[in-house]
Amino acid sequence: MKIDTLNLIIEGKEFSFGGGEGNGLQLDCGRSLPEVNISYETYGELDDSKSNAILVCHALTGNSHLAGRHSPDDSAVGWWNCMVGPGKPFDTDQYFIVCSNVIGGCMGSTGPCSINPDTGKPYRMDFPVITIADMTRGQKKLMEHLGIGKWLSVVGGSMGGMQALQWSVSYPESVGSVMAIATTSHLSPQAIAFDWVGRLAIMSDPAWNNGNYEDDLPESGLAIARMLGHITYLSDESMRRKFGRRLQEKENYSFDFSKDFQIESYLEHQGHQFVERFDANSYLYMTRAMDYFDLAPDGDLREAFAQSNSPFLVVSFSSDWLFPPENSREIVKALRNNNIEVSYCEMESAYGHDAFLLETETLGGLMADYLRARKADME
Amino acid sequence: MKIDTLNLIIEGKEFSFGGGEGNGLQLDCGRSLPEVNISYETYGELDDSKSNAILVCHALTGNSHLAGRHSPDDSAVGWWNCMVGPGKPFDTDQYFIVCSNVIGGCMGSTGPCSINPDTGKPYRMDFPVITIADMTRGQKKLMEHLGIGKWLSVVGGSMGGMQALQWSVSYPESVGSVMAIATTSHLSPQAIAFDWVGRLAIMSDPAWNNGNYEDDLPESGLAIARMLGHITYLSDESMRRKFGRRLQEKENYSFDFSKDFQIESYLEHQGHQFVERFDANSYLYMTRAMDYFDLAPDGDLREAFAQSNSPFLVVSFSSDWLFPPENSREIVKALRNNNIEVSYCEMESAYGHDAFLLETETLGGLMADYLRARKADME
Repeated sequence: MKIDTLNLIIEGKEFSFGGGEGNGLQLDCGRSLPEVNISYETYGELDDSKSNAILVCHALTGNSHLAGRHSPDDSAVGWWNCMVGPGKPFDTDQYFIVCSNVIGGCMGSTGPCSINPDTGKPYRMDFPVITIADMTRGQKKLMEHLGIGKWLSVVGGSMGGMQALQWSVSYPESVGSVMAIATTSHLSPQAIAFDWVGRLAIMSDPAWNNGNYEDDLPESGLAIARMLGHITYLSDESMRRKFGRRLQEKENYSFDFSKDFQIESYLEHQGHQFVERFDANSYLYMTRAMDYFDLAPDGDLREAFAQSNSPFLVVSFSSDWLFPPENSREIVKALRNNNIEVSYCEMESAYGHDAFLLETETLGGLMADYLRARKADME
Repeated sequence: MKIDTLNLIIEGKEFSFGGGEGNGLQLDCGRSLPEVNISYETYGELDDSKSNAILVCHALTGNSHLAGRHSPDDSAVGWWNCMVGPGKPFDTDQYFIVCSNVIGGCMGSTGPCSINPDTGKPYRMDFPVITIADMTRGQKKLMEHLGIGKWLSVVGGSMGGMQALQWSVSYPESVGSVMAIATTSHLSPQAIAFDWVGRLAIMSDPAWNNGNYEDDLPESGLAIARMLGHITYLSDESMRRKFGRRLQEKENYSFDFSKDFQIESYLEHQGHQFVERFDANSYLYMTRAMDYFDLAPDGDLREAFAQSNSPFLVVSFSSDWLFPPENSREIVKALRNNNIEVSYCEMESAYGHDAFLLETETLGGLMADYLRARKADME
């Protein structure tokens, strides 16, 4: 990733609520979080009419750091740096962009690593199982804190797209438009199955210790879960193009069980990197929240969107087999059956699910145009 | 599976060779097995002209027990019982059918569980890494032992299909025809990636103990590997049809990490069953053999089949994403470019890779007709 030449220095922000009777966050599971912290970042300026605010929802392992750097010597830029900044699709000269780490995450917002005020110790596996709707509940509190009445748009890819869809169902009056990228209205049994196996890998790692790990992290289990995830983010075709059957720094097969193929080396690298930055318990909670995501448990997706009234942009990618275009077409159909204005783009891409992070030029152009039109609608 | 009404009682057979200088099995890795046992079964009678013999090659976790039962009180029948027997596609009144457990397996043939004659102890991870070609080398020895000069057909699905293809390349003069079902001429990087993650799960299980497990088996790792395998054997569509998002004996989400969904319960069952019947080290060796399978490392598949001269039947299944139809079409194209007679059938099926075990009626009819035509050719 290129370092943004604009040297955008962004400060992480915190918003806390709760701490008193009934002031916490009521959750779908029936429990509540008495004290909640939301870690977030903002980009650009909120205009006087408060009509230029955009909420970006991050994916499974993302965070609130969208763009720029936290300090001049920060070597990495935010995960959507290509999209957010002056003159970029999410133009910070025009829009006020908000991104917060989800509840249950491990990047600053209240999650399994946070201190349980009832015990004074980290929640770990005592943290309540949260849902995608719970994540949006936290974001809604942040919205109120920021004094925003209606988002110009709520946007997200993958698990972020689930949150964007959930916003339109839970808080239709607060949503000016939705951009749902590479997502689904319900997790498929195949995706549930991958999540199950990934969680088993973590929970079977002795270092996991029922979630009570300290210095000895369940690295092996978390790495396996991450590698498995990565396979589902790429497509068969992109793997053939990127790795093929090429060997990694070898002329011939090793005839042992060390890594021979480039794809094996790639997975090992991804797994290794991930355990350095992500919490294993949080991974369990994030994937469970996705498993439980289903906007229409009774099968009537049209009915689920009955209260939604903002326009939608829905984007899918041809080679995405985790959340395939068929999932997006179901959403589009349900929206159209509610006479909701929906633009749908099924992009040709070989990148698989990861396309939502890689097809930046086409996707960026599409979203920039869409935002411009929505802003014009508001004026 | 229905118990065959014909009460076919089949006896397992053993064939051993080696034990003297140069009498063992030379392997692709450069090492050799000094003593080799091949566990096999036969069905029907070899005719006087020895022209009615068929070799069936089994898939990853299969064995030599194709059909019938080992004793009258045996509760299970062989894995291809629907295909093999009197009046069935592999008609035991007409054909002499041979199936042997592969080298490296754990169902009777020499593998990691076998005693290493050099040490008097089980090989375990000292067993040499074997290839698909090594498996066919073992089968060729068995063929000579049985006094068969040419197979009427060599047939197999999945890893069995790889062996069938390898036969036509390694021993073209010994092959009367090939039936290659739901297979590929090379493992894709995606399939290599799944194998890598599955093996990591096994090798990360402390009970694996570098392969030196005794009573405490690496059940958790092997179960994870098997569950992962199972996801790749089913299709997204078959999972939707069979399980959907239905809960298992629950009205609502548990809001914990126990199994909620039917698909989770199914995977757990498959994993649990598997560890009762399969050896973890053998699973490592089998998957590595598949990783290494590539008939055309230089990319010229036509050249790979240049010496093959028997007709082929190639069958793929529309929803098989592990070994997709594209893999079969590559084989068909390479064969046609060698002017080899090839029949290709791309069957519509929602069952995914498992279709080769489930689409028995259509596949059975196809293979029965093909065998009949090949037999007529021989007469």
